[in-house]
Amino acid sequence: MKVTVHRKAHFNAAHRLYRKDWDFEKNNEVFGKCNNPQFHGHNYELIASVTGDIDPETGYVIDIKVLKDMIKAEVEDAFDHKNLNEQVPEFKDLNPTAENISVVIWNKLKAKLNKNHDLEVTLYETPRNFVTYKGE
Amino acid sequence: MKVTVHRKAHFNAAHRLYRKDWDFEKNNEVFGKCNNPQFHGHNYELIASVTGDIDPETGYVIDIKVLKDMIKAEVEDAFDHKNLNEQVPEFKDLNPTAENISVVIWNKLKAKLNKNHDLEVTLYETPRNFVTYKGE
Amino acid sequence: MKVTVHRKAHFNAAHRLYRKDWDFEKNNEVFGKCNNPQFHGHNYELIASVTGDIDPETGYVIDIKVLKDMIKAEVEDAFDHKNLNEQVPEFKDLNPTAENISVVIWNKLKAKLNKNHDLEVTLYETPRNFVTYKGE
Amino acid sequence: MKVTVHRKAHFNAAHRLYRKDWDFEKNNEVFGKCNNPQFHGHNYELIASVTGDIDPETGYVIDIKVLKDMIKAEVEDAFDHKNLNEQVPEFKDLNPTAENISVVIWNKLKAKLNKNHDLEVTLYETPRNFVTYKGE
Amino acid sequence: MKVTVHRKAHFNAAHRLYRKDWDFEKNNEVFGKCNNPQFHGHNYELIASVTGDIDPETGYVIDIKVLKDMIKAEVEDAFDHKNLNEQVPEFKDLNPTAENISVVIWNKLKAKLNKNHDLEVTLYETPRNFVTYKGE
Amino acid sequence: MKVTVHRKAHFNAAHRLYRKDWDFEKNNEVFGKCNNPQFHGHNYELIASVTGDIDPETGYVIDIKVLKDMIKAEVEDAFDHKNLNEQVPEFKDLNPTAENISVVIWNKLKAKLNKNHDLEVTLYETPRNFVTYKGE
Repeated sequence: MKVTVHRKAHFNAAHRLYRKDWDFEKNNEVFGKCNNPQFHGHNYELIASVTGDIDPETGYVIDIKVLKDMIKAEVEDAFDHKNLNEQVPEFKDLNPTAENISVVIWNKLKAKLNKNHDLEVTLYETPRNFVTYKGE
Repeated sequence: MKVTVHRKAHFNAAHRLYRKDWDFEKNNEVFGKCNNPQFHGHNYELIASVTGDIDPETGYVIDIKVLKDMIKAEVEDAFDHKNLNEQVPEFKDLNPTAENISVVIWNKLKAKLNKNHDLEVTLYETPRNFVTYKGE
Repeated sequence: MKVTVHRKAHFNAAHRLYRKDWDFEKNNEVFGKCNNPQFHGHNYELIASVTGDIDPETGYVIDIKVLKDMIKAEVEDAFDHKNLNEQVPEFKDLNPTAENISVVIWNKLKAKLNKNHDLEVTLYETPRNFVTYKGE
Repeated sequence: MKVTVHRKAHFNAAHRLYRKDWDFEKNNEVFGKCNNPQFHGHNYELIASVTGDIDPETGYVIDIKVLKDMIKAEVEDAFDHKNLNEQVPEFKDLNPTAENISVVIWNKLKAKLNKNHDLEVTLYETPRNFVTYKGE
Repeated sequence: MKVTVHRKAHFNAAHRLYRKDWDFEKNNEVFGKCNNPQFHGHNYELIASVTGDIDPETGYVIDIKVLKDMIKAEVEDAFDHKNLNEQVPEFKDLNPTAENISVVIWNKLKAKLNKNHDLEVTLYETPRNFVTYKGE
Repeated sequence: MKVTVHRKAHFNAAHRLYRKDWDFEKNNEVFGKCNNPQFHGHNYELIASVTGDIDPETGYVIDIKVLKDMIKAEVEDAFDHKNLNEQVPEFKDLNPTAENISVVIWNKLKAKLNKNHDLEVTLYETPRNFVTYKGE
């Protein structure tokens, strides 16, 4: 019996959407006010969803405390109260759009999970704008 | 890498559930208080979810501003503060159940999207009653 | 020790904002799209807040089941799935703005409450627009 | 046209995570504070999602009132204000983890649904911890 | 300039509403299904609201981290995953209604706050039932 | 009859908590990770609450569209997608704590309101941390 276990977490960060190899006008045309050179920020809400078989011994797919601690170590400690463009290595040459952030988070968590667990990541940039990535 | 981009929107509308070719008793039996001939209404919440490849140049699947404007033009301007039965042509001969409204919205948005983007629509009639349609 | 007990409820209704003694142009100027003659609607969320002393015998200010039943009888049964302008007597000659609806609800509930209980009513017309009335 | 109809419900219950065939130390090591022998509790939020074809006659996949009543009879009446370990027969020998509760609920509701309806169950133990089961 | 700083927290607990000096019938008549002798439970959500002057040096009324830690020590560590009737001394002879729990929490937090800070406590037993106490 | 009309709005911004006249160690000691020199950010949610008499002619205390436009002009256009410390003049020499931001917003909105309207401002920095200011 396959069940998906979801854990919700959050972090606050600053970011700016732009490409270093484009000039300011081009960045402004494509990214609008998200290209503010002084940065702006978000309260990101994250849902990490792990699918696997229920362990008949414990009744767990994954101990939610293990998942919570994994999200804290891989995501919250790395991203919270940071400037994504300037202080998080994965975005040194990658535009921190919600899409790209969700892929980065997926890669970090997937590497720590049991091999037979599937992962889906949902990332809210605001309550009205959010993205989902499942590694496909 | 396929990511789904979700955008949340809302509109307020009046509706009545009934079939013109049924008499009042039959409509009442099937649709209960939703058949009130003087109409009632809802704050509809809509989530439009677009799946596609991340554009490596921008880091976007779709510019969320484009999606937001598309929802405004196709859904909010057409449905907000309207009587669905009386003032929205798609429901002239179609019962405006949440199911049918979600299909109408899906058809309108799908026609405006890039061909290689998939669409799923979730429509909340109330916080406890909602539907999902993905064109299958 | 005075404690406030809050109970949340909801109802769906259609309404139209206008004055019968004004012409359509004047109503449109003042009430905009809320003056749609075919009505529109909302999921109203209501919070009724009752303040009083804790009964030392039960530990209750008011049995929340009593409050829930009172709201059902006075508000939900009277307003839910109704057209406020056409089917609710209190709005026959009263414009059903959120402000006026909150006063009508306050008057109905206050009349049923114990005399030494204070009442405050919060009414959400949408998640972003809401009003509060406490009988002052 | 296949649409999914979702209905949200809730119940409050007490539970304890442990195995009768393990001693207290072993249970504590695996289940931590969830193994409190005096029980603890949750407000469970449930979303039952039924997928099927839209009935062209009514515009419904399933009458949401039927679904609401089914959830009330099978889940709310059986679990609400109960001690899951002590008072709900399905958990006599089954650890009431969120995963196992979601499977029990799925089995109860699936047995009452039309054969050509698919079912997915999402169960929130807290707003941050939740699970999904779809019978696979 | 007086500002109120609010901090939201939560805890899960089991409880039973009853008086030891009443027999089961009397308790059942007054407390209904909340009198289940095997207990039931809730996810309690707490908002602690502290009012005071803004410190012109820091721009804080109270460091929210101090408030967060205070709530953790006084409320979460004491109540979370506990059976309120059996394991929390304050409720040994006090019925753990939402009203009484809010007063107990207010007393615990008030004793730790700076003397010139006012306190209000809002406690959600469920998203639809909640209480407020401000020490008056 | 005095009613309070509430309007919810939001803006995203970057900020850093620190005093220019303190050295980095002192700022770190007082403001912790909120002192990140590269900034971090939030989705701020704002509730502006205006209290006044119901206009018997319209049934409004204030036209919510007027209030919405006022919040847009005074707050959203001024703060959204900005770096509060670097790009919003009011915070040139004022630490942008939630407390201070709420006072700045209150002052801006109060100046535009009708003299006999009272104002209260609630500002969410995160869903768990928020402040209220009413000009006292």
